[in-house]
Amino acid sequence: MQNADPGTGVATAWWAEFDEMLGKVPGPDWSAHDAARERQDTLTKPQGALGRLEDFACWLAGWQGRAKPVLDSAQMIVFAGNHGVTAQGVSPFPPDVTAQMVANFEAGGAAICQICEAVGAKLDVVPIDLDRPTRDMTVEPAMSGEECAAALALGKEAVDGAADILLLGEMGIGNTTAAAALCHALLGGDASDWTGPGTGLDARGVSRKAEVVSRAVAFHGGLRSSPFEALRCVGGRELAAITGAILYARLRRIPVILDGYVCTAAALVLEKSAPGALGHCIAGHLSAEPAHERLLVHLGMEPVVKLGMRLGEGTGAAVALGVLRSAVAAHNGMATFAQAHVDNRD
Amino acid sequence: MQNADPGTGVATAWWAEFDEMLGKVPGPDWSAHDAARERQDTLTKPQGALGRLEDFACWLAGWQGRAKPVLDSAQMIVFAGNHGVTAQGVSPFPPDVTAQMVANFEAGGAAICQICEAVGAKLDVVPIDLDRPTRDMTVEPAMSGEECAAALALGKEAVDGAADILLLGEMGIGNTTAAAALCHALLGGDASDWTGPGTGLDARGVSRKAEVVSRAVAFHGGLRSSPFEALRCVGGRELAAITGAILYARLRRIPVILDGYVCTAAALVLEKSAPGALGHCIAGHLSAEPAHERLLVHLGMEPVVKLGMRLGEGTGAAVALGVLRSAVAAHNGMATFAQAHVDNRD
Repeated sequence: MQNADPGTGVATAWWAEFDEMLGKVPGPDWSAHDAARERQDTLTKPQGALGRLEDFACWLAGWQGRAKPVLDSAQMIVFAGNHGVTAQGVSPFPPDVTAQMVANFEAGGAAICQICEAVGAKLDVVPIDLDRPTRDMTVEPAMSGEECAAALALGKEAVDGAADILLLGEMGIGNTTAAAALCHALLGGDASDWTGPGTGLDARGVSRKAEVVSRAVAFHGGLRSSPFEALRCVGGRELAAITGAILYARLRRIPVILDGYVCTAAALVLEKSAPGALGHCIAGHLSAEPAHERLLVHLGMEPVVKLGMRLGEGTGAAVALGVLRSAVAAHNGMATFAQAHVDNRD
Repeated sequence: MQNADPGTGVATAWWAEFDEMLGKVPGPDWSAHDAARERQDTLTKPQGALGRLEDFACWLAGWQGRAKPVLDSAQMIVFAGNHGVTAQGVSPFPPDVTAQMVANFEAGGAAICQICEAVGAKLDVVPIDLDRPTRDMTVEPAMSGEECAAALALGKEAVDGAADILLLGEMGIGNTTAAAALCHALLGGDASDWTGPGTGLDARGVSRKAEVVSRAVAFHGGLRSSPFEALRCVGGRELAAITGAILYARLRRIPVILDGYVCTAAALVLEKSAPGALGHCIAGHLSAEPAHERLLVHLGMEPVVKLGMRLGEGTGAAVALGVLRSAVAAHNGMATFAQAHVDNRD
């Protein structure tokens, strides 16, 4: 799908602006990262004894560009979208639940509301055209280029550029089907490798869902070499918004905690477009949705927690923020051996 | 080792009072537990979608005896002790570090201080006779029966009976040697199965430490059938205090988060004395100390987090408390399907 450039008349892809941004993404501030690592090695503990807590602190330091990172302003954005593919019977919940859950988010009654409050994250809920589901991916592209670009832009705009850390979540009946199709399109394998029970399909339902995923990806064909086209054809609005938010966070050097399978599938679009594009992201948790582990292995990401959660909404990312708070508290507040007059090892 | 009962003249073991307590421990309040489980199944999420967070909430509900558990008053106790076995060169840090670190705990400069503040736990530090190390377990019992009973009692007394949850940690140069000897004495296997680098021994140091553990357990002999005697002969004061604190918490039905290898080894004394005695305990984390995993498998405990930490002090338990806060927030604060007018699955 191409657009004619109004200035030059040259046809450009609808995703050209995103590709261009990906070409300009900054790396971390290595001097801040290394200063954080040096600090860790002077703190009153055996070197490395805080394990991954030390790594989290140094990773945050690098992306925030400060040897002592902060988590004063944590933003969680939950994007919601609806999916035409639900016509294929891929979820045990009716599509109306997406809007009902958005109302529940806004009223404070959902898991993500409560967990955000517990871990100290501001929650922003962004429903995207819920009355206009994506089209059924098994028979036509889920979105036009314009629609997909708009969702990417919406994701970008939803990010608070002043946030210390960004957490991403989603809600959308049918969206584990979109995630599975995106992974199958971009990483190959068998459709069943990427398909799971979602909100709770039985084995027969999972098998039917895998058949839908297989059919959708085969219908479009040739998506593997074009990640943004895959997002447009078999993704969804909330997935595209997540992709856009992650990209914008990278431009602003804001570290990101990904949630589960759907969120990570949206992130995959960037990694396939520009390897290394997810250096500012960590996986908040390992979802019980089986394909999430396969996807994280592909991305080389080790999740912060593994608690058998499979809710989405950003809940796994929010739990992980709690762990990062401990990491930052220890990193910033501990005394050094010299300060505390503690003898270091022989 | 026996004491003559002053009333009857009948000889009783020094640990008889603890055995007696173990005979009287209460179970959880199953009606509160089941009410919590029923509540989980009405909340606005697919059943089971919060994974272990749901289990943590129900476990807390059972022990606290309320369908909506609270974490308003979390107590962390760090017990510290010194170990005569350090004469055998089992640690790269000098024994003076125990007292220096206690001062660091009291000044707020240690990891546990910072993490307790981050997760909302009150920190109590209990140094036990630091100027009177246990005796060298390779040539005599680490403690007399009186000393061990006093440490157990001190542990009991340190617990705030009004706490909602108890977290336990320890500090003591040489105490992973005591933990290894206790596990080897009570669970058999090879000394090297239970011996690791502790604060950072190299392979040669670990090998030497395993030889010390092997020698100590062989010297005493016959400890396997007598867990409290094992605690006395090859344990330590801070380990005994942890054992006492866990036992007292059980009598008060206070749920407990264990920390790493040393803490779990102290807990093992109760499980070996009275199987099931640790029902009110969860493993906060999996330590990088290799034997911790073996010990948790023996106890059938799945740790809350696995972050490669190996500091002790209660740091792993404190990080786990943060996760439990998310579990409780979701459990208590979420809306039900009926309250939120969300359609449940077809």
